[in-house]
Amino acid sequence: MRPSRERFTKLLLFFGSLFIGTLCVAPKHDPLDTAAQRRAEALHRLDTLILLTFISVLIVIVLTAWLFKHYRFRFVHESGLTLIYGLLIGFCIKYFDIGLWESTTIDVAPTNVTLQLREPPDYLRLEVKEKEQSQAQSVSFHYELIEGFYADKRKKDEQKIEQKTAFSPEIFFNILLPPIIFNAGYSLKKRNFFRNIGSILAFVFVGTTVSCLVTGILLFVLTKIFAMGFAFQELLVFGALISATDPVTVLSVFTEMRVEPDLFALVFGESALNDAVAIVLTNTIDSFSMSTETVDLNALLGAALNFLYVFFSSLLLGSIVGCLTALLTKLTHIADHSLLETSLFILFSYVSFLLAEVVQLTGIVAVLFCGICQAHYTFNNMSEESRATTKQFFHVISFLSESFIFCYIGVSVFVAGNQKWNLPFLFFAMIAIWIARAVFVYPLCAFLNLKRRPRIAKNYQHMIVFSGLRGAMAFALADRNTATENKQIICATTVAIVVMTVLFNGGLSNWMIEKLGIKHGDQIPNEYSLPRTDSAGEEREMIEPVTTPTSSGQNPWDKAFLPRKWYNFDANFMKPLLTHANPSLMDTMPPFTWPIAKFFTSDRQMAGGSL
Amino acid sequence: MRPSRERFTKLLLFFGSLFIGTLCVAPKHDPLDTAAQRRAEALHRLDTLILLTFISVLIVIVLTAWLFKHYRFRFVHESGLTLIYGLLIGFCIKYFDIGLWESTTIDVAPTNVTLQLREPPDYLRLEVKEKEQSQAQSVSFHYELIEGFYADKRKKDEQKIEQKTAFSPEIFFNILLPPIIFNAGYSLKKRNFFRNIGSILAFVFVGTTVSCLVTGILLFVLTKIFAMGFAFQELLVFGALISATDPVTVLSVFTEMRVEPDLFALVFGESALNDAVAIVLTNTIDSFSMSTETVDLNALLGAALNFLYVFFSSLLLGSIVGCLTALLTKLTHIADHSLLETSLFILFSYVSFLLAEVVQLTGIVAVLFCGICQAHYTFNNMSEESRATTKQFFHVISFLSESFIFCYIGVSVFVAGNQKWNLPFLFFAMIAIWIARAVFVYPLCAFLNLKRRPRIAKNYQHMIVFSGLRGAMAFALADRNTATENKQIICATTVAIVVMTVLFNGGLSNWMIEKLGIKHGDQIPNEYSLPRTDSAGEEREMIEPVTTPTSSGQNPWDKAFLPRKWYNFDANFMKPLLTHANPSLMDTMPPFTWPIAKFFTSDRQMAGGSL
Repeated sequence: MRPSRERFTKLLLFFGSLFIGTLCVAPKHDPLDTAAQRRAEALHRLDTLILLTFISVLIVIVLTAWLFKHYRFRFVHESGLTLIYGLLIGFCIKYFDIGLWESTTIDVAPTNVTLQLREPPDYLRLEVKEKEQSQAQSVSFHYELIEGFYADKRKKDEQKIEQKTAFSPEIFFNILLPPIIFNAGYSLKKRNFFRNIGSILAFVFVGTTVSCLVTGILLFVLTKIFAMGFAFQELLVFGALISATDPVTVLSVFTEMRVEPDLFALVFGESALNDAVAIVLTNTIDSFSMSTETVDLNALLGAALNFLYVFFSSLLLGSIVGCLTALLTKLTHIADHSLLETSLFILFSYVSFLLAEVVQLTGIVAVLFCGICQAHYTFNNMSEESRATTKQFFHVISFLSESFIFCYIGVSVFVAGNQKWNLPFLFFAMIAIWIARAVFVYPLCAFLNLKRRPRIAKNYQHMIVFSGLRGAMAFALADRNTATENKQIICATTVAIVVMTVLFNGGLSNWMIEKLGIKHGDQIPNEYSLPRTDSAGEEREMIEPVTTPTSSGQNPWDKAFLPRKWYNFDANFMKPLLTHANPSLMDTMPPFTWPIAKFFTSDRQMAGGSL
Repeated sequence: MRPSRERFTKLLLFFGSLFIGTLCVAPKHDPLDTAAQRRAEALHRLDTLILLTFISVLIVIVLTAWLFKHYRFRFVHESGLTLIYGLLIGFCIKYFDIGLWESTTIDVAPTNVTLQLREPPDYLRLEVKEKEQSQAQSVSFHYELIEGFYADKRKKDEQKIEQKTAFSPEIFFNILLPPIIFNAGYSLKKRNFFRNIGSILAFVFVGTTVSCLVTGILLFVLTKIFAMGFAFQELLVFGALISATDPVTVLSVFTEMRVEPDLFALVFGESALNDAVAIVLTNTIDSFSMSTETVDLNALLGAALNFLYVFFSSLLLGSIVGCLTALLTKLTHIADHSLLETSLFILFSYVSFLLAEVVQLTGIVAVLFCGICQAHYTFNNMSEESRATTKQFFHVISFLSESFIFCYIGVSVFVAGNQKWNLPFLFFAMIAIWIARAVFVYPLCAFLNLKRRPRIAKNYQHMIVFSGLRGAMAFALADRNTATENKQIICATTVAIVVMTVLFNGGLSNWMIEKLGIKHGDQIPNEYSLPRTDSAGEEREMIEPVTTPTSSGQNPWDKAFLPRKWYNFDANFMKPLLTHANPSLMDTMPPFTWPIAKFFTSDRQMAGGSL
């Protein structure tokens, strides 16, 4: 063995020296080119360093989350933990100058002095000359407008690092958010969700709107009293964006405690769906003022119609994309190629988001309902492997995106240049949001309890109020546009509210559940228990969702709002059309007389009689 | 049911009108702010549209790929198909002005006229005034330097859309490439790979270097004859980057045809590993010239040492990160929480890449070997669910990234502003790369055949030459820096070579395999057959890799280069340290006398005697 290895080494050496020899003819280099390349390399290293920091923090978060789970330490949860780490990093960056990019910024003016700029141009072209005399060596460099970063002329020197750490809202809205929302729809526990759909929708539509209005009005009164110059519309926008509650933390607490499944469905359903309402509401209020300055009733009606149009069109579009995927997986044999099937599934789900955005609808709503349709129809058609892969894929992606966002929120408290702190406003806002939440939860529950059986008990109502944590969506909406000082105050206030609610309410959720005497864990009779999160259970849940008659048979909740016709339509038409259905359904019975159809028909007749 | 629904509708209407009423107080708006917001929205729509286009194309690609697979149409493969679609889209964008963003670009100069710019500043600050008289309304907008986009002063009007479609090399190198390379390492068929490791390493190190030199020298001679002003160093860089062969297309053809596994291992191993060598080689040659203008032998030796240092440090770093993950998964019970385990696995794998980049090593090499370690050690420690998830996750991500890159290469042919076509150079380059490939494959095979049993037959050698497709890595390296005209020519040439080799060589691979009489499909005896790609088989392959003595027992290939000591070290020390090992190994035998250890010890003694 030895001789040949030596020969190999010699060969390597020979080729190595040959290689070295060829380098002798090094040409002279253009210094401008070199400078640009050096800059590109330095920037690359900085980008990588920032990414590395975030990824390392994510690792630490995962490890700590695991330790906490392992030792059943329950007062800080993943999102709270992530926030805390984010805050720590932000603090370090701010006060130890870590990661500061020594950038140069110069003031420029148009070369054409007669040009009157009314809005910022998209690109600037700057000529840099090698030496004064040589005309040939001049190179034009192009500069692109930085979005959402508007500086006050007076404070020039502060904005260095922010420009590098502040990641663009585009990335947030186009890349990080869709998988989170899709996963919320895709992993929805459909049975409990649909059993409570009426109450959830009431919370989502009425609740969010009321919360938005009450917050806006309260803050308007308070800021007027203390003479803080906020426009009513700005406060309404704030009310709309702060009404988006966050499902992440509550979900993890509730799952761990195994609380009563109907409370779980109410809180989770509300927080998953009201993101969509909040985003449409914010956009509507925002765009409303932009188009017109004098307001007449027609414009108002137009705005309201626009809100409904945008919401339901997005819903429809997402559902259609989901159904298309279902048809495609049903009619082709693509299930033979699991990789292609999975890719197709992921791509189609993403398309629902992008398509909605392009036609000026709301991608979040579309992707949420696409997720629900995918779980309801497409999931049944897929191969075993693709089922597991898609579920895990979105679970992981969504977990990582969420962690990243919470970490980023924490960091932004210290380093973002677009946040302006105003403690009185923050104080007022904290009061306003809890009043607003109480104002809609208790009356709405009272109203729902007229019909609902079992009623939503008082302690459940307290818990619903307490569960109103704010999270990623509120932050994203506030961070999107921080052009004016008031908007920067709103952004800072939102960040503070997110941090406080996640740490305080999230951390005390366990204690509150015990304190309020809400059934959880082994206190719940077996048939009520929350579906376990292990994969086998979830899959069963996903495969036989509506076909189990228990959903309406055992528990008559929400009869008032339950869209029974929809169930019939779904079971008799949509499921057979879009899925391979359950084998027992197709194989054991002659067509057109499936037991489900029978059940629902008789049930409808019965229900029709009783109501 | 009806009355309550009506009541609900009325309630909704009531709240709706309340909501509308509150909008009456719309404040006046700052036009500059409005303009910026309008611009942000328009940009967002354009970004989304571009993303939507790419995702839609990916869907079409997946569907066509499936159809082709379904109907066993073999002359165009996924990557070829993707390229063709990319070309079509690029053509459409170019000639039908689709997606053209009506941007405004203005020339600017520093306001401080005495300032002498020697290199471009990082940011520009431009003041835009609302009206001439009001000082308060002036807003400063910030502009960021666009990387890698240098314009000739003479051609001002051409660069509009390119700026939007040209995605930054940062995204390519930091986001798209790592999963592809990691997946190559993670899904490596280890048994066949390690059986041929000696030959593969010879191809990778000697082959890539020779190919780089021969291409550079040939082109230098040709361009000198025809008086095209290329520096020798530029041509060497081109030689280095064009030496990176692409595994994607060949892999899919070979897998489908089920060619002889040793040929498969040789071609795949070479193409997977030489990306890493090419990137280090390119960087070394590039950086070499930057630091110094007069060359002495010390500097040359330094460059060669630097090459070795970078390659092996990166290798070590990646392996260490992989082993750390293995230790972590072995020593903790994180396997109980599959989601956390999977996330940790993904994050650690990514960290190997980022860490290497930050300390100025090569991330690609690190992530490749991290992938191999993860498959070799960590995989054994993970829960069933995480095994399946991580495998599928990287498979899907890598598939999508690859498709995106190939599509993008196609698009860039028409729309990129940083490519300059030069047909004579392209012609010379095509000749040079095939000569360079033949020049190292045949002699190297002859040399290897001195020791190898069975020898690499002549038809196998032809096939190895023929399989030298170029792909994503070559494109990425060429696209990274296009500051000078020569570099733009090199970029265009690289794109053309990628398109031609993928379409021509990729398309004719099937035909070539038949023509050359290479064993494939059922012609191969069963014990030689390629491991099937179905998940069960692959998993088995991954779990019991080195423990099967057949790898050295049945097939004595590559004895000369087989690092047998490494096997002993691995089986006796690394595997027991880093993994739970196979239960059969630990449970059935007393410690320190595992059959593997015995086998290797005796085998080494035997081997030592015979050599």
